[in-house]
Amino acid sequence: MKIIDKILTLTSEDKPFYSFEYFPPRTEAGMENLYARLERMARLEPAFVDVTWGAGGSTSEATLEIVDAAHRYFSLDVMMHLTCTNMSISNIEDALERAKDSDINNILALRGDAPEGQGKWENNAGGFNYASDLIRYIREKYGDYFSIGAGGYPEGHPEAKSKANDVMYLKKKIDEGANFVITQLFYDLGEYFSFVDRCRAIGINCPIIPGLLPIHNYERFRQFTELCQTKIPPEVNKRLEQIKDDDAAVKVYGIELCIEMCRKLNEQGVRGFHFYTLNLESSVTAILDELGWTDSAASRRALPWRVSSLSDRSEEDVRPIFWSNRPKSYLARTMDWDDFPNGRWGDARSPSFGDLHDYYLIRRGLGLDSERRRKRNLEQWSAPTKPEEVYEVFARFCLGEINALPWCDTPVRAETSHITDQLLTMNRNGLLTINSQPQVNGASSTAADVGWGGIGGFVFQKAYVEFFLSPQKLQQILKRLEDAPTMTYHAVNAAGDSCSNCLDDHVNAVTWGVFPGREIVQPTVVDTMSFLIWKDEAFHLWLEEWGSLYENGSASHSLIREIHDSYYLMNIVENNFVNGDIFSLFKGL
Amino acid sequence: MKIIDKILTLTSEDKPFYSFEYFPPRTEAGMENLYARLERMARLEPAFVDVTWGAGGSTSEATLEIVDAAHRYFSLDVMMHLTCTNMSISNIEDALERAKDSDINNILALRGDAPEGQGKWENNAGGFNYASDLIRYIREKYGDYFSIGAGGYPEGHPEAKSKANDVMYLKKKIDEGANFVITQLFYDLGEYFSFVDRCRAIGINCPIIPGLLPIHNYERFRQFTELCQTKIPPEVNKRLEQIKDDDAAVKVYGIELCIEMCRKLNEQGVRGFHFYTLNLESSVTAILDELGWTDSAASRRALPWRVSSLSDRSEEDVRPIFWSNRPKSYLARTMDWDDFPNGRWGDARSPSFGDLHDYYLIRRGLGLDSERRRKRNLEQWSAPTKPEEVYEVFARFCLGEINALPWCDTPVRAETSHITDQLLTMNRNGLLTINSQPQVNGASSTAADVGWGGIGGFVFQKAYVEFFLSPQKLQQILKRLEDAPTMTYHAVNAAGDSCSNCLDDHVNAVTWGVFPGREIVQPTVVDTMSFLIWKDEAFHLWLEEWGSLYENGSASHSLIREIHDSYYLMNIVENNFVNGDIFSLFKGL
Repeated sequence: MKIIDKILTLTSEDKPFYSFEYFPPRTEAGMENLYARLERMARLEPAFVDVTWGAGGSTSEATLEIVDAAHRYFSLDVMMHLTCTNMSISNIEDALERAKDSDINNILALRGDAPEGQGKWENNAGGFNYASDLIRYIREKYGDYFSIGAGGYPEGHPEAKSKANDVMYLKKKIDEGANFVITQLFYDLGEYFSFVDRCRAIGINCPIIPGLLPIHNYERFRQFTELCQTKIPPEVNKRLEQIKDDDAAVKVYGIELCIEMCRKLNEQGVRGFHFYTLNLESSVTAILDELGWTDSAASRRALPWRVSSLSDRSEEDVRPIFWSNRPKSYLARTMDWDDFPNGRWGDARSPSFGDLHDYYLIRRGLGLDSERRRKRNLEQWSAPTKPEEVYEVFARFCLGEINALPWCDTPVRAETSHITDQLLTMNRNGLLTINSQPQVNGASSTAADVGWGGIGGFVFQKAYVEFFLSPQKLQQILKRLEDAPTMTYHAVNAAGDSCSNCLDDHVNAVTWGVFPGREIVQPTVVDTMSFLIWKDEAFHLWLEEWGSLYENGSASHSLIREIHDSYYLMNIVENNFVNGDIFSLFKGL
Repeated sequence: MKIIDKILTLTSEDKPFYSFEYFPPRTEAGMENLYARLERMARLEPAFVDVTWGAGGSTSEATLEIVDAAHRYFSLDVMMHLTCTNMSISNIEDALERAKDSDINNILALRGDAPEGQGKWENNAGGFNYASDLIRYIREKYGDYFSIGAGGYPEGHPEAKSKANDVMYLKKKIDEGANFVITQLFYDLGEYFSFVDRCRAIGINCPIIPGLLPIHNYERFRQFTELCQTKIPPEVNKRLEQIKDDDAAVKVYGIELCIEMCRKLNEQGVRGFHFYTLNLESSVTAILDELGWTDSAASRRALPWRVSSLSDRSEEDVRPIFWSNRPKSYLARTMDWDDFPNGRWGDARSPSFGDLHDYYLIRRGLGLDSERRRKRNLEQWSAPTKPEEVYEVFARFCLGEINALPWCDTPVRAETSHITDQLLTMNRNGLLTINSQPQVNGASSTAADVGWGGIGGFVFQKAYVEFFLSPQKLQQILKRLEDAPTMTYHAVNAAGDSCSNCLDDHVNAVTWGVFPGREIVQPTVVDTMSFLIWKDEAFHLWLEEWGSLYENGSASHSLIREIHDSYYLMNIVENNFVNGDIFSLFKGL
């Protein structure tokens, strides 16, 4: 999606929205951390994220990799920075082409600073000297393909002759085709407002988004503000002087100050806020939570799962439930589909899932295969030698005491908290849950945990639970299912032995929504065909992610293999979403 | 659908089902009456209807016409009788080809009686002599295309040497390819059961459906039973002798006797019942109501509207609500579609509706254009000269005091009774309702009035109302709608002036159902495109059906034209199906 369109739409809804800026880390561990953060911060529903471009293209590979991953696997709308200083036209061309190939159509076009060591910025012989040149080039070469952002300087660019002269340069960028402005950081609100006034006065009518840097640390704050020649209001200076040696106090103050700035900007009609995150998570999250702006995230979720931002998936609105805790795997395994299910899954003409190989390629790319990660998993899962110790790992995951399981690639969904107790009991009884959703009968579409699809609608869910279990336990549950006519189920082991009360071509909508003036939306389904593909992945993960932590022949390795070989993977849907009770099935097993 | 498949499915459900036999009337008025009956009796959800074949093909045109209409416009599964006596092979071939062209794949293959006046049956030089010859021919020529029924004689065919010998002929018919048996009428249950025993003993294992003739009239009963040499149990004879001069008493006794026979047969495990209706409606309806067998009709409705029995419409499961009281018009106007919407209307690639001409052709065919009918309409609608008199016609239709309006081609739906009072008030206030449905929030899918789709599901409806109204009233309602954010509406006049709060391409599902192990079914929608096509038909009906009853220039004619020219047609959906109140909009107007 073009960011200018999103800004205009969100502004018209008259609620605050925000965007996050990141920079490419220099180490592999840094990349791994950034990806984890991107995925967690995606839950705050930023309007977009953007990634900086190292001077002279020094981070081009990493920048492109991060925007591509954020777009492709974390389903975020992304903007790539591009600077022209010390960049040849062919370098620029190459960057734009690669962005386009990755379905990225948003560029923040900047002049850029001089490369490190060069000191002062100098004219660029083989390329462009001004952001406006770069913008003109992009428009000439790509027409309307890209939405283009420009940088604005509330206090004037440090090299500008005057503030009045500086906005003329900005006007030129807009005239050449930039669609909106993101400002440099500032702490003096008066500077921002008078900058906007200057812009409007000379006919800059596009959105001007304030850029905000929460103060995290005194030293870095000083560096930044000196580099940018940012004016610091005296009361801010005074307060910081008092606490500058207390890192925690500085951080808390930084949060408070930023909240206050946001509130005042919002009171004056500002709706869009751009955060320079410095790749940090906690300050921005705290600021948005405190402002209460993340509460409206539910009303912004179009579907219960994150909708892909890739343009060829724009119509997609149905997915099988099985990958809901492993969306990156689902995205990778369906990357090559020509069409995505729209309206109903039953219309999809036997889509063929890519094999796991596709997923392992992206795992490496996203740093999910690192040795660090294996070590962390070993710490979390330790080395069980009895089945009960495995059960306890699942139980601890339910309790949030550990944060990773092979089948859960993402943070636990908020709605799961409604059924934590029931899941805990199941896991302690050897029903090892890897996916579930609570029953919902006509909740508001803007309800915080389970809402999606916008205002004025009602959402529904059939209760769902999916778990591994021993053949003995399976027999007990099958016996109970004989007296549960409203439940549909399917159980299968690694070898493919299967039992079910569903037809092979059945498709069961387990999440749906009813909205004013629309057809029914049914974004999540349980179907036999996908389940049989998923079960291969699910059993494979026992050995690949967990068993492989131990030496071949060790007790833990044998135990995991034994579970892999003998257990069944079972899914159960309670079709009575009005007054059914799926967990009654497991009571006193 | 092949009737043998339907019989086997319904038998396996272990609930009683039934079929109705008709004969082609000899007069135009008789045809018109039969069509009206077929449509009303379709509501009893017969498994199929069948139409007799006059001796020697004497009624072939009418027989083909009726089965085709019942199949095409009343959406019934149909079986055509075909006899071979005095029929050349080319006549037979012609009849089968025409049946096949009409998508009819069920034949009751009979030898047939001698033509009237010929007296005794004689060998047929140029054709077939036995039903078994006809059955062999159909199988050889058409393979499995037709499901074939054969006639069985519980008391032996009058010309048979013995009962034992008679079933050998039946065995031959089965061996040649007949799929099931319908018996000749009988009143002695013992005769039926011993016939079935004889059949089973020689390896006739197919379904044997008892044929029942409720006694309507003493004289005809005597004629029939003498012709067929039917054994009458002494107690039946005795009772009839007592009341034979009291027609009403005979009819009541006929109903009681038939109910008793049905009960006893059902107790012995019989599930399918074939009624010789003699084109009469009340006895069979009373019998089935009294037995309580029509109650399960709701659980047999696959969708809220009658699903077409035409094979090329077998996937169709979505229709716009506008034609719900004029299904024959909808069927005619969509006859040429290559694909029918399945799953959702939004998937249909701009289906193009046929023009009204198609419908007027079928109206003539179904006798809906007759002078008799116009006379009846004139009686019902009289000759209004003030708008209030028109309003009163609509009000009386709500009350059931008159049974026809130009926009309502079918009997009023049972669910409408839930909102009769509200509709009555609207009509008396000049909001002339022609279509509506009450709000339903998760009723059982087997609920008598609103249920559909089989057992174990939940059905939902958004409240809907559609009405004509004056421009002044429209302004009042539009004002009220400003404070009704959950309602979507569209109003348009004959000239096409339009106002709406919906997008042009919006599709609003107003009836949907949630079933175990299935995707959401959404069979009825409100959409802008279809509404604009429907409004032409709806306005046209004012002039064509109503105004045309009066002389040009008369006060009534001018009034109807004035309404046609100035009124708007408006539809309103209350999207809040949980606790909305669509009728609050019209209170105290």
